[in-house]
Amino acid sequence: LPTPLKLDNLRVVLVSTRNSLNIGAAARALSNFGIHKLRVVNPYEKAFREAKSAVGGAKVLADAEEFTSIADAVADCNLVVGTTAVRHRELQHPIMRLEAGSRLIRKTSGNVALLFGSEKFGLSNDDLSHCNWLIRIPTSDENISMTLGQAVAVCLYELIRNGRAPVQKEKLKLASSEEMERITTTLLDVLHASGFLKRRQVSDADNRIRRVVRRLAWPERDATVWTGMLRQILWKLRKGGPPEG
Amino acid sequence: LPTPLKLDNLRVVLVSTRNSLNIGAAARALSNFGIHKLRVVNPYEKAFREAKSAVGGAKVLADAEEFTSIADAVADCNLVVGTTAVRHRELQHPIMRLEAGSRLIRKTSGNVALLFGSEKFGLSNDDLSHCNWLIRIPTSDENISMTLGQAVAVCLYELIRNGRAPVQKEKLKLASSEEMERITTTLLDVLHASGFLKRRQVSDADNRIRRVVRRLAWPERDATVWTGMLRQILWKLRKGGPPEG
Repeated sequence: LPTPLKLDNLRVVLVSTRNSLNIGAAARALSNFGIHKLRVVNPYEKAFREAKSAVGGAKVLADAEEFTSIADAVADCNLVVGTTAVRHRELQHPIMRLEAGSRLIRKTSGNVALLFGSEKFGLSNDDLSHCNWLIRIPTSDENISMTLGQAVAVCLYELIRNGRAPVQKEKLKLASSEEMERITTTLLDVLHASGFLKRRQVSDADNRIRRVVRRLAWPERDATVWTGMLRQILWKLRKGGPPEG
Repeated sequence: LPTPLKLDNLRVVLVSTRNSLNIGAAARALSNFGIHKLRVVNPYEKAFREAKSAVGGAKVLADAEEFTSIADAVADCNLVVGTTAVRHRELQHPIMRLEAGSRLIRKTSGNVALLFGSEKFGLSNDDLSHCNWLIRIPTSDENISMTLGQAVAVCLYELIRNGRAPVQKEKLKLASSEEMERITTTLLDVLHASGFLKRRQVSDADNRIRRVVRRLAWPERDATVWTGMLRQILWKLRKGGPPEG
């Protein structure tokens, strides 16, 4: 099995970013996913200064390194991967979907640079000439271009995700929320009528009961049976009198 | 094999969102990933109006539906999943990592609502009482909380991603960019000295050559050999005179 990518081996390189909010959003995505090496190449000076001084800009931005050329920014990297929204940028580079590209990146030993271009123009052909290959996020044809901060977040998530995260067993084929809400409100009526809930004693008692109901996986076909039972109980409770039989 | 989630069966529900830019960013993520059903519950009215009128707000926002309660917003859903950054919100609900939760969501037949809380407070206990279970994005402990737009983008990406996207074979264990750049500049000198490139004839010839070099997977151990060969050739070209032998 290949050694998984060490997060410290990843460098996120922002090229010619224009907007301080976007630099900040990218930095936040790094810190969300535990990645610390942010590099900026020829940012608009004002945007970079503003981003650095923003509240909550935090450690990733304070430690960000500035370069005047891509060659310098990726000099210590063994693999340089560009990001693009375009599908076939004249086919000068191999382009892979993010899912596949991430598998290759994770298998790489040594340092990896992940390049993001400017908000408006993406990576130029000049920028791309420094890349070994490109990845694209599998966006829909109706709107292929993501914001910088969202694109960085999605790429980093894909790199750190763990496909083997365990799933708890849950039964599906559930009743609709409308049916569950009907069960909940009828049950609440019953609980009040029976004295189990004292009227208005605990203000969030309704929510506690709603959670109790929601934690059960109510099969769709049983929902009306439950509602019927509860309604009968409620009717009997409200009618009053001694129990029958 | 389970039927994969139909994108039309997914409803993204924003609860009590305060900021128009965040509503816009969430809407953009929907359109990036081909999802069309955006619902908002009790948004700050001004924020929702501003978001709807924003340039590029586009179809998803124009079609967004507004509700005054979560119960109404999820009434047609068979599964309601909340999102949270918190790990153990008093353990009232099962919480799963996004990777695992997405597998369950994809297996669900019927409609699925994915709930996102306000930027500042997330989903309240009241909001959460409508959920069957919760997912959390596997963020780093150093900064667990993502921006709304980035969180929506990452969740939707995970739902649409295709883990079987094909990988092109690439040999890894590559030379560093510094070594590849040394090969590139030496080769360029050789090409100029040899007359293959006429000086300054094509302004982006250097980039074309750099791409040609980068498209090869240069094994690290061969880099110095190549540089040595090219330097010898360059020396000979510059020395001039008839070929030896």
